[in-house]
Amino acid sequence: MSTTATDQSKEIPAGTKSAIKGGEFLIRETEANEIFTPEEWSEEQKMIAQTCKDFLEQEINPRLDEIDSMKHPELMPSLLDKAGELGLLGTSVPEQYGGFGMDFNTSMLVAEILGAGHSFAVAISAHTGIGTLPILYYGNEDQKAKYLPKLATGEWKASYCLTEPDSGSDANSGKTKAKLTDDGKHYLINGQKMWITNGGFADIFIVFAKIDDDKNLSAFIVEKDFGGITMNEEEKKMGIKGSSTRQIFFNDTKVPVENLLSDRENGFKIAVNILNIGRIKLGIAAIGGSKAIINNAVNYANERKQFGTSISNFGAIKHKIAEMAAKVYASESAHYRAGQNIDDAYDSLIGQGTDPAQARLKSVEEFAIECAILKVNGSEVLDFVADEGVQIYGGMGFSAEGPMDRAYRDARINRIFEGTNEINRMLCIDMLLKRAMKGHLDLMSPAMAVQKELMSIPDFGASDGEELFAKEKKALRNLKKAGLMVAGAAVQKLMQKLSDEQEILMNLADMLIEGYVAESCLLRVEKQAGQKDAEAVSIETDMMRIYLYEAIEKAAAAGKEAIYAFAEGDEQRMMLMGLKRFTKMEPHNLKNARRRVADHVIAKNQYPF
Amino acid sequence: MSTTATDQSKEIPAGTKSAIKGGEFLIRETEANEIFTPEEWSEEQKMIAQTCKDFLEQEINPRLDEIDSMKHPELMPSLLDKAGELGLLGTSVPEQYGGFGMDFNTSMLVAEILGAGHSFAVAISAHTGIGTLPILYYGNEDQKAKYLPKLATGEWKASYCLTEPDSGSDANSGKTKAKLTDDGKHYLINGQKMWITNGGFADIFIVFAKIDDDKNLSAFIVEKDFGGITMNEEEKKMGIKGSSTRQIFFNDTKVPVENLLSDRENGFKIAVNILNIGRIKLGIAAIGGSKAIINNAVNYANERKQFGTSISNFGAIKHKIAEMAAKVYASESAHYRAGQNIDDAYDSLIGQGTDPAQARLKSVEEFAIECAILKVNGSEVLDFVADEGVQIYGGMGFSAEGPMDRAYRDARINRIFEGTNEINRMLCIDMLLKRAMKGHLDLMSPAMAVQKELMSIPDFGASDGEELFAKEKKALRNLKKAGLMVAGAAVQKLMQKLSDEQEILMNLADMLIEGYVAESCLLRVEKQAGQKDAEAVSIETDMMRIYLYEAIEKAAAAGKEAIYAFAEGDEQRMMLMGLKRFTKMEPHNLKNARRRVADHVIAKNQYPF
Repeated sequence: MSTTATDQSKEIPAGTKSAIKGGEFLIRETEANEIFTPEEWSEEQKMIAQTCKDFLEQEINPRLDEIDSMKHPELMPSLLDKAGELGLLGTSVPEQYGGFGMDFNTSMLVAEILGAGHSFAVAISAHTGIGTLPILYYGNEDQKAKYLPKLATGEWKASYCLTEPDSGSDANSGKTKAKLTDDGKHYLINGQKMWITNGGFADIFIVFAKIDDDKNLSAFIVEKDFGGITMNEEEKKMGIKGSSTRQIFFNDTKVPVENLLSDRENGFKIAVNILNIGRIKLGIAAIGGSKAIINNAVNYANERKQFGTSISNFGAIKHKIAEMAAKVYASESAHYRAGQNIDDAYDSLIGQGTDPAQARLKSVEEFAIECAILKVNGSEVLDFVADEGVQIYGGMGFSAEGPMDRAYRDARINRIFEGTNEINRMLCIDMLLKRAMKGHLDLMSPAMAVQKELMSIPDFGASDGEELFAKEKKALRNLKKAGLMVAGAAVQKLMQKLSDEQEILMNLADMLIEGYVAESCLLRVEKQAGQKDAEAVSIETDMMRIYLYEAIEKAAAAGKEAIYAFAEGDEQRMMLMGLKRFTKMEPHNLKNARRRVADHVIAKNQYPF
Repeated sequence: MSTTATDQSKEIPAGTKSAIKGGEFLIRETEANEIFTPEEWSEEQKMIAQTCKDFLEQEINPRLDEIDSMKHPELMPSLLDKAGELGLLGTSVPEQYGGFGMDFNTSMLVAEILGAGHSFAVAISAHTGIGTLPILYYGNEDQKAKYLPKLATGEWKASYCLTEPDSGSDANSGKTKAKLTDDGKHYLINGQKMWITNGGFADIFIVFAKIDDDKNLSAFIVEKDFGGITMNEEEKKMGIKGSSTRQIFFNDTKVPVENLLSDRENGFKIAVNILNIGRIKLGIAAIGGSKAIINNAVNYANERKQFGTSISNFGAIKHKIAEMAAKVYASESAHYRAGQNIDDAYDSLIGQGTDPAQARLKSVEEFAIECAILKVNGSEVLDFVADEGVQIYGGMGFSAEGPMDRAYRDARINRIFEGTNEINRMLCIDMLLKRAMKGHLDLMSPAMAVQKELMSIPDFGASDGEELFAKEKKALRNLKKAGLMVAGAAVQKLMQKLSDEQEILMNLADMLIEGYVAESCLLRVEKQAGQKDAEAVSIETDMMRIYLYEAIEKAAAAGKEAIYAFAEGDEQRMMLMGLKRFTKMEPHNLKNARRRVADHVIAKNQYPF
C-alpha cells in the first residue's frame, strides 16, 4: 500500500453529493437536503443502536463501580470479549476480516451509544479505533489477514503507544528508537510510552518509534509475546478509573521486519490520520455521554422536591436543562452531517476504483477540519452538560452515590486526549489556511467579496421574509462572513507570524466552530420542517434559535478580540463596523424559548430528540 | 441576648467611614482611599499569614494523600489539635474566651491562606465558622463560657447540622423535631441530618430542629455525650475526600433546655446569619486555593517542554495564566474591600455601645449582599482556575500523581455548599430589592436618573481624560447605570412576579456581581497608583483593564437577555439602546495586555500580587 494514497492533492470529483469538500462549509451555502440527520436512521441502524443500549444496560451499567475499582483486572477484557461476541468490536472491520464493514456514520452511532459507558467506552473505543484502525488502514494484506480477525472478535485486544513522558502535544518528538538487527530480520525497539489505554491487558501494541536517526516516526505492530515489554502499575486518575492506563517500557523488544506498518517514516502521518477518526468518534461519544447525563438530570429534577415543588419547575433549572439539550442537539447535528460527508466521499472514491482502506483514510482526511472542530465541540458540550448535571443534583451531585460524580470526572479527559482542545483549535485553522494556500479551498474570493461588501451600503435585509428560516439563514451567512473577514484580514496582516499568535488562532477557531455547529443545527431543523409540519418541529426550532443566538454572541466576542489584537486605526474601525453588521441579531426572547424546550424535555423525562 | 439585635432596621450612623451601607456600591461612587487593599497588611497580619502558610507546608501538604484516604480517622482531629495549639482555631473568638479576637479582615486572611489546604481547609473552616460562630454570636454568657474556650483550643470539635435529605436549599423545611420533656428540663430531638462536615469526630453539634409544630427552626447546642446520636459511614464524595461528611441520626437525643441557642424559632435567622459569614469566608478561601493552583500551573508551564520550548512561551498558555491571575486579583480586591467594610461597621457599632457579638452579626448582616456576591464569584473563579490548571498540565492534569486532580475535584463543592450559586445569585437581588422597598437603599432615584439620562442626548465623554483611569471609571459608572436601568425596569414591569422569573434574577445578579468585583479591582489599582508610581502598577493596571472589559461584556450579555425577556416594542428598543450606550467599551488590545500579565507571572514563577 502506497503512502501517497493519502496525499491530499488527489481531489474528490465534482458534480456528486460527495463533491462537498472538507472545510468548504465556510464558503459554501449547504442545502438542507444535502445533510444527513439523525431522524433518518434506518430500522437496521436503530436495531444496532438498541443492541448497544441493551449491552450497556445489561453488562456495563450494573458494574460501573466494580469496573472503576480495578479490583478485577480481568473484568474489562472479559467485557470486551462479550462485546466482541455481539459484533461490537468489528463494526468498522470489513466482512472479509471477520467484521461487519459498517459505513462510517453507523460506526459513529455505535460510538455515540457506547459513549455513555464511562471507562468501558474508553476501552472499546481505544481497541476498535486507535488500536485496530492503523492495521486496517495501513496494514498490508498479510498484516490485515493475521491481525484483523482476532481484533474484530476481541480474541486479541489492542492499544496505541504514541505519547511519551516528554512528548505529548509534540508527538513527533518521541525518543523511542527502533534498530534493525544485524541479520536484517528484526527491529529492536527501546523506549518508554505513557498514558497507554488498554495497556494492562493489550495483546497488540501499535508502537511509534524512530528508526535509527530518522526525523519522522515509523509505526510497528508489536505483539505482547515479542518480549521485552514491562509496565508500571495502573495510573491513578481523576476519572475513567476503570480504563487501564499504563506506562510501558520496551527493552530490546524484538519486532519482525514484516511488522513495520506502512513505510518507514510514515508513522507520524499514520498517527495524525488515525487521530482524525479518533477525534470525530470522541466527539460523538461525548454526545452519547451527554445524553445520558441529561436523562439522569431531568429525572432527578423531576423527582427532587424543594420549596414544595419539583425543582424542575424553577426557572433556573429550566434554563440549565434547555441549554444542555440545545447544545447536545446542535452538536449531534454537526457530527452526523460530517459523518455522512465522510461516507459520501468514501462511496465516491470507491466508485473511482480506490482501494477501500485508502478510500476510508482519504475520506476522513478530507474532513479533518470538521473532525478537529467536532472533537473540541463534543468534549466541551460534555463538560458543560456534566457540570450543569452536578449543579442540578446539588449536594448529591458531589456524592459518589449519585451518577454525576463519575460523569463529571470521566468527562474531563476528553478535552485533553486525542490532542488537547487548544491543539485542535489551532489545527483546524492551520489546516484551513493550508488548504487555501494549496488552492484546494478558495477562501480568498469570498473573503475579498466580504471586504467589498464592507465598503458598500449595508443590505438591510429586504430579501428575508418568505423563505423558511430566512432570518436565521441570513444571520448564519453573516456569521460566516464575519469569520472570513477576520480570518482573511489576520492572514493578510500577519502572514507567517500568524502561527505565533495562538490567541488569534483560538479566536478564529471559535468563530469557525460556532459557525459549523450552528449551520448544522439549522439545516437539520430545516430538513425536518420540510418533512413534518412546522408545529411538529417547534421545539427543535427553539433549540436552533437558542444555539444560533449564542453562537453569534460567541463569534462576535471572539472576532472583536482578534481585531483588537491585530488591527489598528481606520482598519480596526472598519472591521469592527463590519463585525457588528455581520453579527447583528434581532431581539429574541431566549428565556421563553428555553422554557419551552425545558418543559418538553421535562415532560418526556429524558432527552427526547 | 435579644434577637432584635439583628434587626436590619437599626441603621449604622452616617458621617463615618462605616456609613458605607451594604449594597450601596451600586448607587454610590466609592473613592479609592475608602477601601482596604491587600497591599496594606500590617507586619503582624503578615506574620499571622506566614504562620498559616508554614502550618500548611509542614503539617498538611505532606499528608494530602493520607488525609484523603480516610484510613486514619484520628488524623484530621489531630491536625485540628495542632492548629489549635498555634491559635488558628481561636482567631474569631474573643480573648476572654481563650481566643485572639481578631478583626474580621484578619480572619479572612487566615481563611485565604488555609483555603489552599484542601480537605483540611473544609474541616477547620467548618469548625471555626459554622460550628463555633452560632455559640459566639447567639450564645448566652453561660453557653459562651462553657463552650467557646474548648472550641478555641480544639479540645472540642464542632459541626453544624442544618441540611436534611429532603431539605437542602429549602433549609427551613427540615423535619427534625424537638419536644420538651414532661419535667420541662430537656428537649428530645429526633431527626436525620445530612452532609454534616466534621460529623465523624465532632464533639459539638449545632442542631436545627422545630419545637413541636413551630413554623420556624430553633437551634440547639448538642454534645455528643447527650446520647441518641448515631451516624452512617463516611460519605464517598467527588472531592474533599478527607473531610468527614456524615449522615447523622438523632434518636430521642436529650438536650438540656439551657442548650437552646437564642430564642425559640430563631434558628432560621441564626442559620442565615451564620451563612452570611460562611459565604464570604468560603469566597476568600477559594481565592487562596486559586493562588496555590496558579503557583503550581505556572511552575509546571515553565518546566514542561514541548516543541523545543517551555509551554509557558505559547500564547495559548499565556492567555490562560493571565486570565487566572486577573480573575484572582479582582476577586481578592473585592473580598478584602468587603471585609474592611464589615470591620468598619463593627467598630462604629461598638462605638455606639453595641454588644460585641451583636455588633459582629449586625456588621456582617449589613453586607449580606456582598457576602452572597463573593461566595458566587470566589467559587466560580476557583472553578475556572482549577479547570485551566488541569488543562495547562495536560495529561498530568488528569493524573492523581499531579496536584490538579485533587484541586479540580475539591473545587467543585464550593459552587454547591453554603447555598448553591443559583440560590446566592437570587438572594443578592432579593436582598437588594428588599432593602430598597424598606427604604434602606434608595435605588429608585438613581434608577430614575438613569431613565432620564436615556431620554437625553448622550454624553460623548468630553469629561474624561485628565483624571487617573478616567475612562475606566466612566465605563464602570456606566456599567452600574446599565444594572440600575435593567433592574429598575424589571421591577416596575414585573412587580411581584419577578421572583418567578429566576432567569431574569440570574441576569441581574450577573450584572451586580461583575460591577462589584470590577469596581473593587479598579479602586485597588487606583489606590496603589496613588502611592507608587504608575509604572510600578502597570501589570495591575493591565489586569484591571482585562477584568473590566470582560465584566462589561458579561454584563452587556446578561442585560440584553433580561431585556429580551421582559420588555417589548418601543420600551425594548429604548432599553437596548441604553444598554448599548452604557456598556460601550473602547477597543483594547487584550491579547497584548494578557501577554504582559502572563510574562510577569511567568517570570516570578508564581502568583506575585
